[in-house]
Amino acid sequence: MSRGRVVMTEFESQVLKGNAAGDPHVRRVPVWLPPSYESGSARRYPVLFVLTGFTGRGRMLLNDNPWSPSLDDRLDALVASGRCGEMIVVMPDCFTRYGGSQYIDSAATGRYQTHLVEELVPWVDATFRTLGSREHRGVAGKSSGGFGAMTLGMQRPDVFGAVACHSGDMYFEYCYRVDIPKTCSVLQAAGGPRAFLARFEASPSKDKDAFLALNILGMAACYSPDPAEELGIALPCDLGTGAFREDVWKRWLEHDPLLLLPRYEAALRSLRLLYLDCGTRDEFHLHHGARLFAGELKRRGIAFRHEEFEDGHMNVPYRYDTSLPLLAAALSA
Amino acid sequence: MSRGRVVMTEFESQVLKGNAAGDPHVRRVPVWLPPSYESGSARRYPVLFVLTGFTGRGRMLLNDNPWSPSLDDRLDALVASGRCGEMIVVMPDCFTRYGGSQYIDSAATGRYQTHLVEELVPWVDATFRTLGSREHRGVAGKSSGGFGAMTLGMQRPDVFGAVACHSGDMYFEYCYRVDIPKTCSVLQAAGGPRAFLARFEASPSKDKDAFLALNILGMAACYSPDPAEELGIALPCDLGTGAFREDVWKRWLEHDPLLLLPRYEAALRSLRLLYLDCGTRDEFHLHHGARLFAGELKRRGIAFRHEEFEDGHMNVPYRYDTSLPLLAAALSA
Amino acid sequence: MSRGRVVMTEFESQVLKGNAAGDPHVRRVPVWLPPSYESGSARRYPVLFVLTGFTGRGRMLLNDNPWSPSLDDRLDALVASGRCGEMIVVMPDCFTRYGGSQYIDSAATGRYQTHLVEELVPWVDATFRTLGSREHRGVAGKSSGGFGAMTLGMQRPDVFGAVACHSGDMYFEYCYRVDIPKTCSVLQAAGGPRAFLARFEASPSKDKDAFLALNILGMAACYSPDPAEELGIALPCDLGTGAFREDVWKRWLEHDPLLLLPRYEAALRSLRLLYLDCGTRDEFHLHHGARLFAGELKRRGIAFRHEEFEDGHMNVPYRYDTSLPLLAAALSA
Amino acid sequence: MSRGRVVMTEFESQVLKGNAAGDPHVRRVPVWLPPSYESGSARRYPVLFVLTGFTGRGRMLLNDNPWSPSLDDRLDALVASGRCGEMIVVMPDCFTRYGGSQYIDSAATGRYQTHLVEELVPWVDATFRTLGSREHRGVAGKSSGGFGAMTLGMQRPDVFGAVACHSGDMYFEYCYRVDIPKTCSVLQAAGGPRAFLARFEASPSKDKDAFLALNILGMAACYSPDPAEELGIALPCDLGTGAFREDVWKRWLEHDPLLLLPRYEAALRSLRLLYLDCGTRDEFHLHHGARLFAGELKRRGIAFRHEEFEDGHMNVPYRYDTSLPLLAAALSA
Repeated sequence: MSRGRVVMTEFESQVLKGNAAGDPHVRRVPVWLPPSYESGSARRYPVLFVLTGFTGRGRMLLNDNPWSPSLDDRLDALVASGRCGEMIVVMPDCFTRYGGSQYIDSAATGRYQTHLVEELVPWVDATFRTLGSREHRGVAGKSSGGFGAMTLGMQRPDVFGAVACHSGDMYFEYCYRVDIPKTCSVLQAAGGPRAFLARFEASPSKDKDAFLALNILGMAACYSPDPAEELGIALPCDLGTGAFREDVWKRWLEHDPLLLLPRYEAALRSLRLLYLDCGTRDEFHLHHGARLFAGELKRRGIAFRHEEFEDGHMNVPYRYDTSLPLLAAALSA
Repeated sequence: MSRGRVVMTEFESQVLKGNAAGDPHVRRVPVWLPPSYESGSARRYPVLFVLTGFTGRGRMLLNDNPWSPSLDDRLDALVASGRCGEMIVVMPDCFTRYGGSQYIDSAATGRYQTHLVEELVPWVDATFRTLGSREHRGVAGKSSGGFGAMTLGMQRPDVFGAVACHSGDMYFEYCYRVDIPKTCSVLQAAGGPRAFLARFEASPSKDKDAFLALNILGMAACYSPDPAEELGIALPCDLGTGAFREDVWKRWLEHDPLLLLPRYEAALRSLRLLYLDCGTRDEFHLHHGARLFAGELKRRGIAFRHEEFEDGHMNVPYRYDTSLPLLAAALSA
Repeated sequence: MSRGRVVMTEFESQVLKGNAAGDPHVRRVPVWLPPSYESGSARRYPVLFVLTGFTGRGRMLLNDNPWSPSLDDRLDALVASGRCGEMIVVMPDCFTRYGGSQYIDSAATGRYQTHLVEELVPWVDATFRTLGSREHRGVAGKSSGGFGAMTLGMQRPDVFGAVACHSGDMYFEYCYRVDIPKTCSVLQAAGGPRAFLARFEASPSKDKDAFLALNILGMAACYSPDPAEELGIALPCDLGTGAFREDVWKRWLEHDPLLLLPRYEAALRSLRLLYLDCGTRDEFHLHHGARLFAGELKRRGIAFRHEEFEDGHMNVPYRYDTSLPLLAAALSA
Repeated sequence: MSRGRVVMTEFESQVLKGNAAGDPHVRRVPVWLPPSYESGSARRYPVLFVLTGFTGRGRMLLNDNPWSPSLDDRLDALVASGRCGEMIVVMPDCFTRYGGSQYIDSAATGRYQTHLVEELVPWVDATFRTLGSREHRGVAGKSSGGFGAMTLGMQRPDVFGAVACHSGDMYFEYCYRVDIPKTCSVLQAAGGPRAFLARFEASPSKDKDAFLALNILGMAACYSPDPAEELGIALPCDLGTGAFREDVWKRWLEHDPLLLLPRYEAALRSLRLLYLDCGTRDEFHLHHGARLFAGELKRRGIAFRHEEFEDGHMNVPYRYDTSLPLLAAALSA
């Protein structure tokens, strides 16, 4: 089987330099070049950016697992089978100490959307033989990466012309709100977000509740930064009284793809591919969000493809076997 | 050790006759008479109504457990030790096929508050040698029974003069709202509430998700009855689209003890005892509700006693060892 | 519906007086008298002894549960429907502080088989209008109670003529041995069995591991008493080294119904009913034991009835709906 | 920070060609070369083989995880800090479709010990600037990799002079036997090991019970191959009757490091480093095995180092921070 090749780059970001969370501004960014890339021709290729979920970063897409191929192995197999056209695939690292960035700009984490769109995209076009226009540039991702793909498709249609959103964060009412009471208890017990984070990072084994709280803390870092609060983050619960904070929650909702949809209708309509799917047993209830999103698209007559599969939220990278060929076709046309 | 005696009565309710849920109107109501009751004297006693939690009914307070005394054994031991004064203790059965009634009147279940206050209270006073005034009549309960105790204390201060609320339902934002997305999935998968309920009742083993959904369905039966909807119940989620229903939720909030507090301030102030406690690891997050409630009482200068203990929501009947003596003292004074 | 009546007796045992575990020798023993019992006639009835599982005692068979009738309610319904003949049903209390007695005599707990057979049986015959012969006396139970029923049927065919064993302990290789490593860790962490037990009894909430360890400790108290060891109990693991103890395990195996079967073939053959069942998802793997037991019965040409049902080990009292009519029929013939 | 480099080789094994399980004989074997390796000098280095646990293979040691460094990053950091001497680190791939090989030769899987010792070791010495003697060659691993390290240290002291065994499989009585009853149920339900395996491989999401059964099936493939049985594997339970198979179990015990210890006493005594550790909450109860092993070493006066840490079995690669420096020191001396 003819294989593509992974080029690992240490990318030095100007945008992320001095970011608020203190995360490194030099990131390892793997780029997969398709099998024919190095044949010596001058052929140019579409580009796909694949975004990882919360607690992930690009390199993890290459992680080996005996029963679930890494992204490069998956691409090799799809291309070799003839099911999927050739593309250049970029795997950004937008991880933060809070577990992720949601691929947006935030005063509490860093300017990750800017980093991605203004730094990585031009660098990829400058470095590799890309078809450097939005028609030939797509974005895909799972979970928080699905959120990232969808919001980039909405907010930056000038940059991205196709979107695949797997089990993406949306309908915050269901996917986040339910974890706020427990997060409140965990952060109170830890003595606040700063102490929680220090303990989380220091502890070799991290339990389920800690990840649940990190998730909410991470979302707050992205959606409701506030320089006046600890770590520069406004939490959706008051750690003093324990109460839910409607004011902070309203700020979160301004990022909910389901609620953003009407505003970005034109962008969504302009996409060459708008794909979304979700497992019917998603532990974060995201299947409801996907259905509501699809329903809204349908009502507005926007073209899309919505699939469901019998599974939960975790361990579903096999869904890329469905989306990658669709993306390659849409970006090659 | 001198022991009290349990009298089991089959009480025929007029109020519950023909109730909407089709539950029986004849109920077995245990009444515990204290050790000295049958000594031949004319002594009159305070009365305590003890309300069970969701999926419970009075008889279950008598259930035997080798490491946790039944309520009658607990009372025997407390009285024998001299820690607790003598009372008559009534254990109403306000169970419904939806798991409970929240001790309120609802068009979808039945008029359980009326049954309790207008039928059981007079019957107890007529049948046993009670001190038949609100000063000497208390109400206690755990979980949904704690909710019942608190709301009866607020709404019927003419009837009850002392309240103990253990791990009681309050701050619905935390205790119920988090379970709505999963309930939506479960009810959709079952084919609606009627089909769900039929399967639930027919199935000998009931899993965790089924109980979670029954809980929300049961609360909807109590808080948002609607003759226009299936089973006469408006659900807090739209089973067609999966969306949360703000309109229904608003109806629920009208029953939240935390939000009701200001309206019933005078009633709460009039209580001889206002006791509430909760475990610090309550799985329904009720410790937050109890703290917020206590904070609000304090702010208003209303006397109360709020305790916390290191435990979860289940298997905490030992908390009655704390509340029963306080109730007996308050109701005897 | 015509109902039977539960007579609760405080039975003062001579056999259990001064038992090694320090458990009370006065026990509350409920006896269910069938509906026609008090019609004034001289009719005599068969007798069934129903034995509870580990951590249980007779009174718990009367515990109320809205979706699973108590044993008296179940009997009322079965008899009223005409499906089940009338019997007197006795619910012994053979509980110990170790969680149970397995209904055998042990130097570490007490002489519970003797108590049951030599005290309770004659007392029941003397007190109630029984058909006082083995042909009309049966024994049934679930889990450890199923073990008790089966071993009593094997060892005391002079006393019991019919057996129903629901999910009964057998094939110790599978049902107990697997829990020994974890028990070893738990008892070591507690500082030995005495300290473990003290903590267990003092702690209001008891976790899963604690019950697992109590189960093994309890079995050791029954199967391998040893006056030379702490609490008079030889454990199947060495708390010093952590090693499995083959010598102690051999003593346990002398109680395994599956291994005892050949020795008691004649007794089993003499039974009017030999019923056993088990759930196919039994968490203690008892379905394997039941199948092996049934296979051995079949090979020897001993009559029996073996059923399986799709469920686990817990919450299966509905199986009595199958066994009680069979028992009543066998004991009435 | 000066970093080492990972060389990825596709190694074509002659030994594994045509292996019974049908697994590939070409394997990707990462080799980490220390920072100074490519400085141009002729310096030679000790070599360490690191063996993965069940379901693992060498490449997975390089998997990225934001809170737990990959092995190459860990080595970079340890060496840069001066805590650890430089070594060449080899990460063999001895994975099979049964989840692993235990690094032994088996007719049901393949000749993995031979592959490792007779093929990989000479190839490494021929390819890289190694100190090619047993004094400078070590082996380490976790879980099944710990088992592999320990057994290679015992059986091939001519090849390996130092061993680190993290949470290694030993005392099969505790670590495997407990999972046999459940495995029996799972394999029966699947219709035998072949059908089970086919379903396991085909199913995108694999549940806990499936992994438990795969583990026992995999161990059987390694410890009790039998050409006369399905897949060439004798299982430790009879799928027809459900019974435990003592004969097969005896074959397993011939591989138990704890029982092998006396036979290989001289080999163990010859090691420059014999390190073992285990978490005190190991879910496979391996802390008991490690303690028993250490106790036996002590009794015989064999030098070793035994550590315990407060954690379970999973997610403990941080233990390499302790063993790698010890190994480097022992192999450099």
